[in-house]
Amino acid sequence: MRLLTRARLQAGRAPRAKRTADFDRAVAEFFMRLALEEAAKGLGRTSPNPVVGAVLVKGGRIIARGYHRRAGTAHAEVVALEAAGAKARGADLYTTLEPCDHYGRTPPCSQALIDAGVRRVITASSDPNPKVNGKGVARLRRAGVEVLTGVLKDEADQLNRPFFKAMRTGLPFVTLKAAVTLDGKLATATGDSRWVTGEQARAWVHRLRDQVDVILVGATTARRDNPQLTTRLPGGGGKDPVRVVVDSHLRLPSTLQVFTQRSPARTVVATLEEPSARKAKRLLATGTDVWQLPEKQGRVDLEALMRRLAREGLNHVLVEGGAEMYGSFLREELADELLLFVAPKLIGGEGLSWSGSLGVKQMARALTVGALSMEQVGTDLLLRARLDPAR
Amino acid sequence: MRLLTRARLQAGRAPRAKRTADFDRAVAEFFMRLALEEAAKGLGRTSPNPVVGAVLVKGGRIIARGYHRRAGTAHAEVVALEAAGAKARGADLYTTLEPCDHYGRTPPCSQALIDAGVRRVITASSDPNPKVNGKGVARLRRAGVEVLTGVLKDEADQLNRPFFKAMRTGLPFVTLKAAVTLDGKLATATGDSRWVTGEQARAWVHRLRDQVDVILVGATTARRDNPQLTTRLPGGGGKDPVRVVVDSHLRLPSTLQVFTQRSPARTVVATLEEPSARKAKRLLATGTDVWQLPEKQGRVDLEALMRRLAREGLNHVLVEGGAEMYGSFLREELADELLLFVAPKLIGGEGLSWSGSLGVKQMARALTVGALSMEQVGTDLLLRARLDPAR
Repeated sequence: MRLLTRARLQAGRAPRAKRTADFDRAVAEFFMRLALEEAAKGLGRTSPNPVVGAVLVKGGRIIARGYHRRAGTAHAEVVALEAAGAKARGADLYTTLEPCDHYGRTPPCSQALIDAGVRRVITASSDPNPKVNGKGVARLRRAGVEVLTGVLKDEADQLNRPFFKAMRTGLPFVTLKAAVTLDGKLATATGDSRWVTGEQARAWVHRLRDQVDVILVGATTARRDNPQLTTRLPGGGGKDPVRVVVDSHLRLPSTLQVFTQRSPARTVVATLEEPSARKAKRLLATGTDVWQLPEKQGRVDLEALMRRLAREGLNHVLVEGGAEMYGSFLREELADELLLFVAPKLIGGEGLSWSGSLGVKQMARALTVGALSMEQVGTDLLLRARLDPAR
Repeated sequence: MRLLTRARLQAGRAPRAKRTADFDRAVAEFFMRLALEEAAKGLGRTSPNPVVGAVLVKGGRIIARGYHRRAGTAHAEVVALEAAGAKARGADLYTTLEPCDHYGRTPPCSQALIDAGVRRVITASSDPNPKVNGKGVARLRRAGVEVLTGVLKDEADQLNRPFFKAMRTGLPFVTLKAAVTLDGKLATATGDSRWVTGEQARAWVHRLRDQVDVILVGATTARRDNPQLTTRLPGGGGKDPVRVVVDSHLRLPSTLQVFTQRSPARTVVATLEEPSARKAKRLLATGTDVWQLPEKQGRVDLEALMRRLAREGLNHVLVEGGAEMYGSFLREELADELLLFVAPKLIGGEGLSWSGSLGVKQMARALTVGALSMEQVGTDLLLRARLDPAR
């Protein structure tokens, strides 16, 4: 009942009829928010599938929760139904994505919900998969299950941006993340960059790594910083993303940490060279994968690389440097989102600018980004912008 | 009574004794805030004097307000007393700065308050001027006037940062204001900078110009942008600040707008050259002042320029560019505050970085700034930082 009281407070004061409608919506949003929290637990683990969370509610109480843990395991709705058992009969199911209606790796959730005797189904996002779109909802309604769609749709869509983009375009969702000084520099003129931002911003980045499928860096960054590109959460745990190093001409030594360290996730070198080349063999010997890719202006064609990643079921790519890589993704319009950590320090115009070469000659022809939002992370600021609002 | 009711609401609910104390403080802060609003009307107009506002309150009602309009005119307290006339007897006077106690251009306010029969005096800032400090308060107390000091002291001190700094150090308070892209650039590689920020940010800058004593730019900015450096408020009105152009070798043509336009405020060229030089004479003929200043590394010594400005009674200097000027003020630790407008656009690493040359080779030796704060101004962000928190 405590939950319902809170929802009642959210609904506030209004004329009786409106109050009832507002109250119903507040209740639906309240439980959907919990389903979204469930879904978020799967971030970085479910690709190529979307993240999905579900909550079963009966008499104003949550009787079961569930989320999709990874591709090939049970869908969120089924996890919740199994946890509830016979109690699911007559309950309301909140799910962040329209239930599936096809026999894939698992039987259709729409039928499972009907079989369990669920009274009402409340959804947030629609499924862009043509095999699903609208069919699950239609089957539920035919069976007499009440269905309410689109509750907190924006929040749910946001959570699955990588899945939706990959489904629609065959390209992964790309986040550029850079840590810069207040004068926009990644490093001093001598290449020193340890550290730009404070501990809290660095911990934030590890939480982000835990939620993406791929970290990508250029060869210069791999060589200069010799990074591990692993997820190190403050409390331990977490999941390493696939590491991709773009090294068009295989000039990196195979002794770099990214090639030699132990990690459950693989490391991929994207290159123009033959996997049979001597240098490639040395990398293969460290357990690193070598992908030979098409060329564009003397470098690995990044769009081809992105398509390959999406084909391998990797929907969310985090680009962590350096300037040349950021510039290429910006120029080629392959990036969707920018996360810019800004530290309260200055190193002067001689430092290395983060944005690489964009070839803009007139201010009026600057590359515009979406609305900036901002938050404080420890002593640093985090500025966020959509890079292609049209997408 | 409406004002008192609002103050009562601010005091909130608490045990009776505490409630009374909280209520008294809330009342005092309420009226002091109105006095601060009065004081702010003088910003940019009172140097070398501080800005000061006063409010006279009797029976919970405001009976008069006043602010110091410019050096040589009546002090805020006297303006309020004169407006109130005989009604001032028994009233409470709120003033943002301790009343003066010396015979300067005007008779001492402390005595005027005693003569008017004011019952209580409430102050915010103390006066750093040794001729005043504590003496006005002492005289009031000797005459039986109740005095409460330090109400909203931080807010009042903030308003008079230029006055306090000039009084303490003989140097003006210096604000660096730059408008940059999300990659920290003032202009493209070809020098194009029209416009970086949106209209609202530009209007904000005109309001700032209205509140400072001086705008300063370097010769490169004066030549490239040919700016007017005047105050153009959306609704008209406003006050032009003194314009200072640093042109160490008098290379600027005297046909630039800053020399030829009409403005009630003067334009000064700061140079190493003799005022008798041919080029200087051409400038003098336009009505421009030419100041010959000491040299430092082949350029005008900025610290000497700042001391001269403070000696001329100009307490607040706004530096509006370019990169070289920002870099010099940062390197020489002459700036107190940074206002960085950040526009949602990118032009790439080839653009002109805003911070000039700082000569930092290691990230660990970066120039650190105070805590960053931020606000949205139209489509742009405004980041603010104290540049020398120790000052």
